[in-house]
Amino acid sequence: MTVRDHGDPGDAPSIPPPLGAVTNPARPSAAEEAHTIAASTNTATLASLSADGSPWASLITYGLLGGDPVLCVSHMAEHGRNLAGDRRASISVVAPSADDDPLAHGRVTLAGVVFAPEGEDREPARRAHLDAVPAAKYYVDYSDFALWVLRVQRVRWVGGYGRMDSATGADYATAEADPVTPRAGDAIIHLNADHADSLVLLARAMGGYPDTDSAVCTGADRYGLDLKVTTPRGVAYTRVGYPGRLDDVDQMRAATAELVQQARTLG
Amino acid sequence: MTVRDHGDPGDAPSIPPPLGAVTNPARPSAAEEAHTIAASTNTATLASLSADGSPWASLITYGLLGGDPVLCVSHMAEHGRNLAGDRRASISVVAPSADDDPLAHGRVTLAGVVFAPEGEDREPARRAHLDAVPAAKYYVDYSDFALWVLRVQRVRWVGGYGRMDSATGADYATAEADPVTPRAGDAIIHLNADHADSLVLLARAMGGYPDTDSAVCTGADRYGLDLKVTTPRGVAYTRVGYPGRLDDVDQMRAATAELVQQARTLG
Repeated sequence: MTVRDHGDPGDAPSIPPPLGAVTNPARPSAAEEAHTIAASTNTATLASLSADGSPWASLITYGLLGGDPVLCVSHMAEHGRNLAGDRRASISVVAPSADDDPLAHGRVTLAGVVFAPEGEDREPARRAHLDAVPAAKYYVDYSDFALWVLRVQRVRWVGGYGRMDSATGADYATAEADPVTPRAGDAIIHLNADHADSLVLLARAMGGYPDTDSAVCTGADRYGLDLKVTTPRGVAYTRVGYPGRLDDVDQMRAATAELVQQARTLG
Repeated sequence: MTVRDHGDPGDAPSIPPPLGAVTNPARPSAAEEAHTIAASTNTATLASLSADGSPWASLITYGLLGGDPVLCVSHMAEHGRNLAGDRRASISVVAPSADDDPLAHGRVTLAGVVFAPEGEDREPARRAHLDAVPAAKYYVDYSDFALWVLRVQRVRWVGGYGRMDSATGADYATAEADPVTPRAGDAIIHLNADHADSLVLLARAMGGYPDTDSAVCTGADRYGLDLKVTTPRGVAYTRVGYPGRLDDVDQMRAATAELVQQARTLG
């Protein structure tokens, strides 16, 4: 992750640094984060090139074929004519989030070139779009609509304030969408409602904040938990990682209990 | 409004045509619809040009100065470097909506060129951004962030399926955002809950559907009401217009009651 100097004029809220090392900071790679966000919805904004070379932003729907977005657009619409005229394109996908601050939302730009799937490539692309966008059954076979697959060559992921990184198309193509993140909502609610003491223990023993007064789980993935901690020095964000990678949200309970057990022996 | 032939292969749901004329089909112009959507939120997707001329889609926040979006982006981010390198840009804004079908949402593309507001132009632009994006107070004055005003030259509005039109930058610049639409939610709920019979009467007498069995108000603006009508021939969408343009949502009750009175004398 790239950390950058924003030229802070001095009045931004300050974040207390950890007082110890994070035991296991493992977290998804930028390519994995990007695939997870791309798989989290069916709506994005396309940037295409108008006939004069200027950039054109427009709402589109998509499904994923592997990690590549499959679009279905009318050639009577400007973006459809644009893709036919110049195959360079990118899409911006914003992860659904309850956060009021739009810049706290995870988002990703997937950039590359589109191609029109033909022959045996067409049906899998058509199916990928229809699976993600059921209403497309009313127009996918209209003569003015065309399928376009965006072959992703370059990825920029932003996880919110201060979390961002790039990935290559090759890394993105082989990265899996996280199996835990999209299904962890109930588990996170349960952790915060019924196991607040355990979260404090994790933050103190393994999260690098031994002065934690309270801790809230703000996110979960196959590698661990994101924690927001309150200390006498202020509010900070940290991480506790599972010993191994999870393959299903059902493994989260046992893995978290194991972490807490481990934290107790450390504490 | 442009009506287009989609080359229907024959299996799309059919919509029953009206059996009579719509008494007053007045509705907002494309430029007005565009301004209303642009004023409805503070988040959009920017299309900018990367150094190699390829299109780059990215999430941005904005406020409106007149109708022109004011962006605040870091020059350490790709979109910030892009705008500095080539001033051509567009943004896509999607109106907030509870509809499950993303392509039923209203959206607009505002395209033009950006400029960096300087001298006496800077403070109004800064204020327009901060009013719409309060969290920007933490970074708007960082040395790596810059304000950009998008001077809108070309507008494409899509109101949902089958409703779309273009507008010039000049038309957009003078069009007002609708004062009724963003505040009509409670009035629409009230109409549908307590005045279903009146909506049927409106649809039968003034909406061109004398065979209406039931009617639901799906939208409201300063010019009138959008109605979804169910007839023995199927479901259709129509319109009833107020005799005059409203300037405030508080005028909606009296104007609607007047329409119903008028429909009774017609019926």
